[in-house]
Amino acid sequence: MERAATAASDMPLEEFRRFGHRLVEWIAEYLAEIERYPVLARVRPGEVRERLPAHPPAEGESFEAILRDFEQIVLPGITHWNHPGFMAYFAITGSGPGILGELLAAALNVNAMLWKTSPAATELEEVVLDWLRQMLGLPSEFEGIIYDTASISSLCALAAAREALGLQVRERGLAGRADLPRLRLYVSEEAHSSIEKGAIVLGLGQAGVRKIPTDDAFRMDVRALERAIAEDRAAGWRPFCVVATVGTTSTTSIDPVAEIARVCAREGLWLHVDAAYAGAAAIAPEFRYVLDGCERADSLVVNPHKWLFTPIDLSAFYCRRMDVLRRAFSLVPEYLRAEEEGVRNLMDYGPQLGRRFRALKLWMVIRYFGREGLAARIREHVRLAQQFAAWVDADPDFERMAPTPLSTVCFRARPQSLAASGADLDRFNEALLEAVNATGECFLSHTRVRGRFTLRLAIGNLRTSERHVRRAWDVVRAHAARLHAEWGSA
Amino acid sequence: MERAATAASDMPLEEFRRFGHRLVEWIAEYLAEIERYPVLARVRPGEVRERLPAHPPAEGESFEAILRDFEQIVLPGITHWNHPGFMAYFAITGSGPGILGELLAAALNVNAMLWKTSPAATELEEVVLDWLRQMLGLPSEFEGIIYDTASISSLCALAAAREALGLQVRERGLAGRADLPRLRLYVSEEAHSSIEKGAIVLGLGQAGVRKIPTDDAFRMDVRALERAIAEDRAAGWRPFCVVATVGTTSTTSIDPVAEIARVCAREGLWLHVDAAYAGAAAIAPEFRYVLDGCERADSLVVNPHKWLFTPIDLSAFYCRRMDVLRRAFSLVPEYLRAEEEGVRNLMDYGPQLGRRFRALKLWMVIRYFGREGLAARIREHVRLAQQFAAWVDADPDFERMAPTPLSTVCFRARPQSLAASGADLDRFNEALLEAVNATGECFLSHTRVRGRFTLRLAIGNLRTSERHVRRAWDVVRAHAARLHAEWGSA
Repeated sequence: MERAATAASDMPLEEFRRFGHRLVEWIAEYLAEIERYPVLARVRPGEVRERLPAHPPAEGESFEAILRDFEQIVLPGITHWNHPGFMAYFAITGSGPGILGELLAAALNVNAMLWKTSPAATELEEVVLDWLRQMLGLPSEFEGIIYDTASISSLCALAAAREALGLQVRERGLAGRADLPRLRLYVSEEAHSSIEKGAIVLGLGQAGVRKIPTDDAFRMDVRALERAIAEDRAAGWRPFCVVATVGTTSTTSIDPVAEIARVCAREGLWLHVDAAYAGAAAIAPEFRYVLDGCERADSLVVNPHKWLFTPIDLSAFYCRRMDVLRRAFSLVPEYLRAEEEGVRNLMDYGPQLGRRFRALKLWMVIRYFGREGLAARIREHVRLAQQFAAWVDADPDFERMAPTPLSTVCFRARPQSLAASGADLDRFNEALLEAVNATGECFLSHTRVRGRFTLRLAIGNLRTSERHVRRAWDVVRAHAARLHAEWGSA
Repeated sequence: MERAATAASDMPLEEFRRFGHRLVEWIAEYLAEIERYPVLARVRPGEVRERLPAHPPAEGESFEAILRDFEQIVLPGITHWNHPGFMAYFAITGSGPGILGELLAAALNVNAMLWKTSPAATELEEVVLDWLRQMLGLPSEFEGIIYDTASISSLCALAAAREALGLQVRERGLAGRADLPRLRLYVSEEAHSSIEKGAIVLGLGQAGVRKIPTDDAFRMDVRALERAIAEDRAAGWRPFCVVATVGTTSTTSIDPVAEIARVCAREGLWLHVDAAYAGAAAIAPEFRYVLDGCERADSLVVNPHKWLFTPIDLSAFYCRRMDVLRRAFSLVPEYLRAEEEGVRNLMDYGPQLGRRFRALKLWMVIRYFGREGLAARIREHVRLAQQFAAWVDADPDFERMAPTPLSTVCFRARPQSLAASGADLDRFNEALLEAVNATGECFLSHTRVRGRFTLRLAIGNLRTSERHVRRAWDVVRAHAARLHAEWGSA
């Protein structure tokens, strides 16, 4: 049956070699010349789709043809997250060692659901997360597990907090139970939307999330938190969790975790810390303070795929109560039963059974750069952002909209000679953002700070240097001046 | 500030090139010589961990040193999922085009959360899932979205089904509401554990999942389903969803979806189909029947990272009510607001905000192999499994434990001359499985079929050929004979 054996084979290894080498060269050249591309893709909606065939090919095609279409059809529709001018959302990096780690992981293609389905994937995950824990200065009671995204990490935290209530939620669920109170968790009004989404998924509902006001630096108001908890208890709610944020998405504000931890301890609430972006900063001793108080948390998430130069996806979740997390998730059918003693089967600790070998790339990134190298890079990103903030502060036609504790600057144009109402200023800055991003030289995003349209410049890519930040500032100023002239004459 | 710029850089591109080429060669050689490795890792628990440093390096290390440790420490702890003798669980393949696709995706490192954050990632996902839909023979009302795993796909299906109830679960949650009934969903007792796990996460609880008995071919008993629904309604439960399985994990049995669909239509229940493994078979016309009735489902999951030669992870979720899915998940904070018209922002359709560019590898796999090439490979895997099943059937010392509709064979040894009770036979087969897997030549897994310990041989890797299946059979028989001799003399 030689025919069938041939028909059923993989790409021949000679071909894999040839195209593998070609892609390595392509990637090196792409990264070398990435500034030639516009950061933000310039295709119009539907343009990529229209250029692709409506039906799959009946017969296989050459990899040559596939790569040609990749370059001609797919690439023009890519927003270049590895471009040094990418300063939107939180900038990230697919670093060299990280890319090579993903290549190896794809080739091994292990599913680390059980220890035995690749012991090294499980144990490397344990070790590399313990390394990261040490670098962050978290106590050794925290054990780690890798999930795909911070959304899932925080969902798991809320699931564990729910399970810790001892209300038999796992067995009996939440619906139709007269014995259950309404459950509530607390976040600041600046917290990430993933917390509210997690609450929706878990059946707590949007009403189960109470948003606490923030102070003038956008940090959770702890007195308001205490009042809210007291009010809710009086009204029959059962408070069960507080999610503090270290590095909010809008302004990277840092909640007063130590104070919040005291409230949680007194009230018996699970404390989860969302440090997805800013947690990485703690690797540099001078920013270690961002995690002050986190040693008292029940769980914490930090995303190496955000500010630790690791290709997406890899979210590191730490928990000091792994038994509760396990109780929230473990279900072992016979076909997955494994009998090894003293090992952790990672499928028991989250919603997903299948698990990529994500630890490999993080291990390579940490070893390649080293703790000092990671700290130096984070330090440099903060320095660049502070530099940008100083330029904003020094320019009378601009204003900073929030403190800049780390590498993200919130600002807007406020031309002195433009007699503009608040709504006009919002529109002016919306137009400014659009014009800046249309240049293709840099890509900023926006937020609203106390309702006011605000530009966000976030430094986080390894290829971003002072030159790029200065260029972004020049582009912003030039377009602000042009728009001002147009608006003035309109 | 040249120093800082240097200290803050990525791996130099010359170095990336050098090690990239080295890894391409390494992978080609690894795949060429993979049969030299034992399939199942032979390390003892903790062995990999003990060989790794307890602390992260302070200074960066050479990639040379990292690769050396990868080979010497990590590799011995790998269970080789790409080994042709891997026949456990469901065998999968990191195919050549799939590995190359992952390499490119890691280099681009886009986060496809919004259309604008990489239009090509969103639109390629739409197109490639439509291609897959056509190949599976599903109607065009099904729209697709890629998640990481079938666990998440099914969780999303249940979340949509819950939202479709119109009970304001999103807004008000499930807990502490006197107006809510207890909610129930139905699966067969052979369904995958991910459904029950999804129910736990969603706050429906284990009690919210009723398991329906199966017929003698392990298919959901539809009369029993109807009785269960009627009983539950009478007892005050609110039935809301049925999950049918096309290709159960134990025996790959196929639920009678068409009949179940009729019940769901009559009862007003959401019908989700878990076709994570077996759905791919529908690409071959002669196995198209496995999806009979699925055209009437509300949602369906099939996993290209299972039997479509795509590196883990990639789960394809189809839904005919994307508006409901969106309502279950969409939350758009200001910092993620995007104004493009007529585009889909994929973050609105699931629990995760961050999204890798998974469509790229699937596009490459489908194009490289083509529809006919994929069908030929699936056909060959089924042929190999049928061959193995025939050998089992022909051997008086073995018995098949379930029908073999596709590429997975459930069987056990039952030596004629061994006067063994049921428990003895279980122990005999447990010992047999352990002995077979200890050879390193193949790796089978187990299940229990009607309580009896059963060996599972699952064909799904592109490198598995008739030679390997025959060798697995020889190994199984040899060890059964040896064990029999030992047990007989004991």
